[in-house]
Amino acid sequence: MSFFAFGSGIGIQSTEKKWIESYFPKPIISPSTSFISAISKLVNYQGGNQTIQLDSPTCHALESLCLKENMKELALHFAVMECSSQNRLMVILEKDLPLQNVTEAYLKLHLLSHRLIKPNQLNLDHLFTVLPNIAWTSHGPILPSELLEKQLLCRANGEILEVYSVDKFPKMSNYIVPKDIRIADTARIRLGAYVGSGTTIMHEGFINFNAGVEGPNMIEGRISAGVFVENNTDLGGGCSTMGTLSGGNSNLISVGKHCLIGANAGLGISLGDNCTIEAGLYLTAGAKVAYIHQNKKSIDQVKAHTLSGKNNLLFRRNSQTGKIECLSNEKPIALNDILHQNT
Amino acid sequence: MSFFAFGSGIGIQSTEKKWIESYFPKPIISPSTSFISAISKLVNYQGGNQTIQLDSPTCHALESLCLKENMKELALHFAVMECSSQNRLMVILEKDLPLQNVTEAYLKLHLLSHRLIKPNQLNLDHLFTVLPNIAWTSHGPILPSELLEKQLLCRANGEILEVYSVDKFPKMSNYIVPKDIRIADTARIRLGAYVGSGTTIMHEGFINFNAGVEGPNMIEGRISAGVFVENNTDLGGGCSTMGTLSGGNSNLISVGKHCLIGANAGLGISLGDNCTIEAGLYLTAGAKVAYIHQNKKSIDQVKAHTLSGKNNLLFRRNSQTGKIECLSNEKPIALNDILHQNT
Amino acid sequence: MSFFAFGSGIGIQSTEKKWIESYFPKPIISPSTSFISAISKLVNYQGGNQTIQLDSPTCHALESLCLKENMKELALHFAVMECSSQNRLMVILEKDLPLQNVTEAYLKLHLLSHRLIKPNQLNLDHLFTVLPNIAWTSHGPILPSELLEKQLLCRANGEILEVYSVDKFPKMSNYIVPKDIRIADTARIRLGAYVGSGTTIMHEGFINFNAGVEGPNMIEGRISAGVFVENNTDLGGGCSTMGTLSGGNSNLISVGKHCLIGANAGLGISLGDNCTIEAGLYLTAGAKVAYIHQNKKSIDQVKAHTLSGKNNLLFRRNSQTGKIECLSNEKPIALNDILHQNT
Repeated sequence: MSFFAFGSGIGIQSTEKKWIESYFPKPIISPSTSFISAISKLVNYQGGNQTIQLDSPTCHALESLCLKENMKELALHFAVMECSSQNRLMVILEKDLPLQNVTEAYLKLHLLSHRLIKPNQLNLDHLFTVLPNIAWTSHGPILPSELLEKQLLCRANGEILEVYSVDKFPKMSNYIVPKDIRIADTARIRLGAYVGSGTTIMHEGFINFNAGVEGPNMIEGRISAGVFVENNTDLGGGCSTMGTLSGGNSNLISVGKHCLIGANAGLGISLGDNCTIEAGLYLTAGAKVAYIHQNKKSIDQVKAHTLSGKNNLLFRRNSQTGKIECLSNEKPIALNDILHQNT
Repeated sequence: MSFFAFGSGIGIQSTEKKWIESYFPKPIISPSTSFISAISKLVNYQGGNQTIQLDSPTCHALESLCLKENMKELALHFAVMECSSQNRLMVILEKDLPLQNVTEAYLKLHLLSHRLIKPNQLNLDHLFTVLPNIAWTSHGPILPSELLEKQLLCRANGEILEVYSVDKFPKMSNYIVPKDIRIADTARIRLGAYVGSGTTIMHEGFINFNAGVEGPNMIEGRISAGVFVENNTDLGGGCSTMGTLSGGNSNLISVGKHCLIGANAGLGISLGDNCTIEAGLYLTAGAKVAYIHQNKKSIDQVKAHTLSGKNNLLFRRNSQTGKIECLSNEKPIALNDILHQNT
Repeated sequence: MSFFAFGSGIGIQSTEKKWIESYFPKPIISPSTSFISAISKLVNYQGGNQTIQLDSPTCHALESLCLKENMKELALHFAVMECSSQNRLMVILEKDLPLQNVTEAYLKLHLLSHRLIKPNQLNLDHLFTVLPNIAWTSHGPILPSELLEKQLLCRANGEILEVYSVDKFPKMSNYIVPKDIRIADTARIRLGAYVGSGTTIMHEGFINFNAGVEGPNMIEGRISAGVFVENNTDLGGGCSTMGTLSGGNSNLISVGKHCLIGANAGLGISLGDNCTIEAGLYLTAGAKVAYIHQNKKSIDQVKAHTLSGKNNLLFRRNSQTGKIECLSNEKPIALNDILHQNT
């Protein structure tokens, strides 16, 4: 018997006692069968995908169990949980099935942001359906239907309730900041983003859930849901990668190593390694491209998507003919090391 | 006798007892004459556009009045106001005249964000003159001239005063989050934005005051002051709509239903329904466009602004000739429903 | 003997008693020799570039000294410092040498944001090396290595620790908001930005450290490290200026007076005065440009960088040929005054 994932933490419930979000500081992927079976007795877990509410004595018993199993960090976690006044929970996922509820969704988003699994490898069916829309405020998450009253009461009391976001996804950094990264403006990285070690995300960078970068990378552009970028690649300021959730594109896009997508450029196909897109050029999948062979003599006219995923290409719009051209890339980029020492 | 608007709420005054902002949780447009005349006696309102400061006994009397008139929500509002320690006020606007002061400006901005009136239908003359510049902080709004001292005192006391924005306009979400919307990063939506039901505004979306969308819409681009977008339209990531406040454009821009403005594209003319602008193309009003008739044989060269507001157009830059072309749009977009169930 | 800079304020130390940031409300450039020599005795300063920790009696003595010297604001500053429970410090820089540590770096970034020195005039060697990466939170700056535990403890206690940014640079506005500016979203302006009087930075604007604008300006685009923009220039929404830290450009870019860089445009060369770049055009240094002489008859083909810094140029991509053209600019812009009265 094997298990897919485990998480334990603290969550917030609505006034009707329904989970509206949950926080798992130490999620585990593929937990050992012995660990789950030891836990099962304490929490009455009987298999399948379950969310279990925890009380203080159970947290205490879990702490003892972890100490016995030499899982020191998790033991410390349960020690803190034992003393908490908040709603505590455990989620055990036997299999990676379609999402049944909020807590399962949050656990899977944590798995991505904890770098335990890469984008596009999780079953996220029903994600938008199970996640409630939340007002993320200086008083924590609140259902939008309860916001107006709360705002007036705060005001009447001389305080302004700061509403940071109204969204189904929280920002990643309030749940986990993985090691050795920088995120200049955390409002732009959703929980469920995968941000690899050595990555610097500047103010104009954005990463959706189920998307990310291998690291190290310099990210000043937008990484749409489903898009993954390999290491040593630079996304210039304001550049766009086409996603599949809205707007008509249906092919998942990926970007290889040592690529440069110039500022304000855009990408509707995948790139292999060592590719460059000139600043300001939006390369859609349907664009006709003049493909200039390495001998610089013969030229083929092809659709951009036929070049998808190939290495060593440079795309530009010829500044005198207006033609989109593809050449052999002779100067692949190197990242500026000093910008990626994020320790 | 008729009245234009009514609002009551809580405001903040500078150390010199001048209003610097105000919050109206339940503004009313075209309040009934009987309601205003009942109120008039309690607050000594004598017609015209007035701002009246309220004390606790008056709030109590207003609560009773609202109960009698069966206005339960407003009665509850005055009950909370009665107990508040803050500066309370009422603004009655008999007519939609040029703005006289801060509180009138805030009431009109509330009318827009409460969806009580659409953009471009209010008299906003003198708006920039009457609104003071404010530092919006974790301790509430502060005049910039008082900020330096406050920052030092907080620091000396072990606290960092968080300064979120220094602007004449606050962010909408601290005043009102209208129903059934998502706003991923609330810092980018000003009070005075009109955000229709079913709208999702992603992290790269922006809406200025006196601008907005009908809803449902997917907004990942920028909606400048004065611009209005009808329903079922998708503004791609980083796209731009030209405004009239700066930069030289003088025609108000609108966008019809079922349009797609591609990522990083831009718009200097209005669009009718079912129009598409290719990702990355900035269509200025003065651009010469090759208008390709539906038979695909005859082509006219026209200025883009002559196509302003027409339906079923597709604009692109030909990837092999660099010409901006306009064709008949054969695949108008449909929004992804699941992204717009924001309840 | 002369001195380069002086600052005194409050800083935060890690659990290992190392400075992780510091705040200097009243930095001084080129302090007088008599002032420094009077101070030297009180703080045992012996020349060179030094950071000195201050206690309450020393702050008291410094207050007295400043009163005697008729430096009233600084006297008030030391009076507040005397009563503070926090770590207090003074940095004296005899010369503008490469940075030795965090506190020197913060003092130099303050000099820029206090408008005491312009970008590109400071020795910032070793800046990225001396600055630690910090999680900027609602509980103040925290080392990323200490964040996970702190987040769990807050959560267990019913509070969500808001993590605004994880970066080597803090946002400017938490340290200093210089006079007569607006910054719609302060998260996008780093400490070390130079923001001149009369400047309005809209939500899409961005200014890196060691970069800035003379003022008045309308800034809705991105100003990369090293870039400086003179007065009365408008950077349109989402426009890009190429920096030198990453992405391959090596020439510092500057922009003259009365320029307009259109929305979503980009700049890889410097501009003189009265220049315009059409919305959506990215002008890289290597682009071939058809330079149309004023008589409109003769045309030269030149590389864009050969036009760097010249006045009165208009750049556009011909909408019918796709050629990048440069013409004589006949309508230089004027800013909308009403948008720049930021008092």
